[in-house]
Amino acid sequence: MNPTMKAEISNAKQIRVSKASANYWRVTFDNPPLNLMGPAFLVEFAEIVRAIESDEQLKVVVFDSAVEGFFLNHSDFTVKLEELTSLPQGPTGLEAWPDILVRLTLAPVVTIAKIRGRATGNGSEILLACDMTFASREKALISQWEVGVGMVAGGGPMARLPRQIGRSRALEVLLGSDDIHGDLAEAYGYVNRSLPDADLDVFVDALAIRVGSFDKWAIFNTKRLVNAASLPTDIEMAAGWDVCIASVKRPATQARIKAFMDLGFHKPGDAENHIGKYLERLNR
Amino acid sequence: MNPTMKAEISNAKQIRVSKASANYWRVTFDNPPLNLMGPAFLVEFAEIVRAIESDEQLKVVVFDSAVEGFFLNHSDFTVKLEELTSLPQGPTGLEAWPDILVRLTLAPVVTIAKIRGRATGNGSEILLACDMTFASREKALISQWEVGVGMVAGGGPMARLPRQIGRSRALEVLLGSDDIHGDLAEAYGYVNRSLPDADLDVFVDALAIRVGSFDKWAIFNTKRLVNAASLPTDIEMAAGWDVCIASVKRPATQARIKAFMDLGFHKPGDAENHIGKYLERLNR
Amino acid sequence: MNPTMKAEISNAKQIRVSKASANYWRVTFDNPPLNLMGPAFLVEFAEIVRAIESDEQLKVVVFDSAVEGFFLNHSDFTVKLEELTSLPQGPTGLEAWPDILVRLTLAPVVTIAKIRGRATGNGSEILLACDMTFASREKALISQWEVGVGMVAGGGPMARLPRQIGRSRALEVLLGSDDIHGDLAEAYGYVNRSLPDADLDVFVDALAIRVGSFDKWAIFNTKRLVNAASLPTDIEMAAGWDVCIASVKRPATQARIKAFMDLGFHKPGDAENHIGKYLERLNR
Repeated sequence: MNPTMKAEISNAKQIRVSKASANYWRVTFDNPPLNLMGPAFLVEFAEIVRAIESDEQLKVVVFDSAVEGFFLNHSDFTVKLEELTSLPQGPTGLEAWPDILVRLTLAPVVTIAKIRGRATGNGSEILLACDMTFASREKALISQWEVGVGMVAGGGPMARLPRQIGRSRALEVLLGSDDIHGDLAEAYGYVNRSLPDADLDVFVDALAIRVGSFDKWAIFNTKRLVNAASLPTDIEMAAGWDVCIASVKRPATQARIKAFMDLGFHKPGDAENHIGKYLERLNR
Repeated sequence: MNPTMKAEISNAKQIRVSKASANYWRVTFDNPPLNLMGPAFLVEFAEIVRAIESDEQLKVVVFDSAVEGFFLNHSDFTVKLEELTSLPQGPTGLEAWPDILVRLTLAPVVTIAKIRGRATGNGSEILLACDMTFASREKALISQWEVGVGMVAGGGPMARLPRQIGRSRALEVLLGSDDIHGDLAEAYGYVNRSLPDADLDVFVDALAIRVGSFDKWAIFNTKRLVNAASLPTDIEMAAGWDVCIASVKRPATQARIKAFMDLGFHKPGDAENHIGKYLERLNR
Repeated sequence: MNPTMKAEISNAKQIRVSKASANYWRVTFDNPPLNLMGPAFLVEFAEIVRAIESDEQLKVVVFDSAVEGFFLNHSDFTVKLEELTSLPQGPTGLEAWPDILVRLTLAPVVTIAKIRGRATGNGSEILLACDMTFASREKALISQWEVGVGMVAGGGPMARLPRQIGRSRALEVLLGSDDIHGDLAEAYGYVNRSLPDADLDVFVDALAIRVGSFDKWAIFNTKRLVNAASLPTDIEMAAGWDVCIASVKRPATQARIKAFMDLGFHKPGDAENHIGKYLERLNR
């Protein structure tokens, strides 16, 4: 992280925005030690999305992480569910998290996810909301882990993954709930490319600078038509969110989440580093 | 095959169902020597689908074969077409074969195809109806051979393949009518993965046991939403079936099927082992 | 190119049609030195499409190039825009270029693009309109370069690429505007396969002869149903065309095109050979 960068959004605590130039911003997830997502993260993120939508000079945004080992992780289950569900609906009419994801897909700029470390649950959903994703071959770990703990994912991967990688591989990712390394993610088309970790920053930076030099009108109008050919409807995204909330409320799921915490979930260490494997231990 | 396994469906003759556990069944195609599909096979299969749909404990089904060299092969053309077309419509309103295929995609359990040997025509259509497919690198041979003999495929690959692997590769598979080995099938996304034959059983078994340990409600609701994003309508499946039946009735097609039989089709040996190549000889 | 081949369409100047057999034609783009596409090219092409649609014996068409280094390139920007936009609408109601592309996807024969050299803009759009594409590993260069010069592509890649290769890679191709070699195009599913240049002709010829031996009714009816599952609507194609024309008229785009010409665009040499790289120099 460039030391000259600083938070541009007032009171930002878990997400940092820095401007590489007027047309190229970096949005850095920075909620150590595990980069979990709770309600405060969502409030900050919604503010950043508003800035991305309205800045006239902005053309490209790169999402990355300042937390070693975690791009962006699952939700914070130590927070009461009501704190999440009481957040106001966004302008799309969707609840806070799917609202952010849908607005990112529609934003008139190019969004790029740069994946190092775990992109699990919310991290994978951000990736799928971005226009492109490049992953570290050695350090990326992508997953939708929800079914393994009795949940349904809330940020729309049931709608987006089959359109991106086909039904069979989408079902493997979602129902298998396992950790996926960079090269398999590339082979499945889950990410654009998996690159050697040493090359990842240079590659993404060069692409961002390149696209940032192009015409914003052409970027937006091209993206708008790609969206028309590829995005699920908001109703489909809403259906996923509603089933997710219903799943969390089920006693069977609450029991599994509690048992997973007893195994080390939500604490730095083996369980968070190997969620895929630990789901087998949980369900043994 | 585990020697303790036995048929669980009464009078089963061409398909065996065995229960690895209450939540994990194996459905094994066993119609030697060529694993052809005729009307009796369909009647048995429909009964098995009903059991899969209604069993409350079942969570994962693996489809495999007990016939060396053949996962599941084309239809039995020695049977009168009327024996097939006179089978009753299924509950979806579709004819017997597409009814089975559609209901498998909707079943509230995970279905996995494990491909060893030839999956041609019906075998490929079962694969495309399953949630995931894993293929033997050395022994899988997948194809939609129908156009090569003047037919149109009946189990919906025109609807399913383009959504799974894109229009260009779907057209290559369908119009080229050639045999496709495991690694090319993986590269095209026709199967989830191609694995060394020696690893295939262990991999699929471990995945089945893993998913079988997860929560059925979460599996079903996740699959339901993936289906909403990825399945063709039943009308599209019906259109494929109707054109297939029309194609079989054409004198030009009947002549080609007869000539193919004269080349060894329907008998164990070279023609059945190399259908792709023999289609060139047929049409020379 | 077989020396016995000759133009079959009267007055053909930029596109040659030769008949390998009654059921197998080759359509060869031959507008040296850069294989640019201008209004005259479109008029010839429309005539050829009419012949492809109506010939009763024809079953397979291979598109290739007679110009070293260029399969089919971008439009000719030295021609007044009015000469293009004043061409009559085609039978689909679409303007001349999207009309040709849509009719190729619907033609009752198999169309195969054989890519050697640059397939940029129109060349990529033809590829996406064909049923299959095979690319030279060493010599294919595929791109949608339009955004790099402030344009939106006119032949529908915003509609077709996401359905073929997924949203993320489609956006990378379109917004990145960079040159893509054969192997990356294969990995992305942009082409069916990338083959060693020395094998490409034999492979495509064998496939064309194979499919040409099959039954035309079966080919057409299979393709028709794949189309139903995979093609965008004509309205979506029209939207892309309209935005393209609007983009060309923008002063910012005109200025970029002029500046690109000053860098060597439209002349044989480095700029045309490395459009992807030169777009960075243009936008510096």
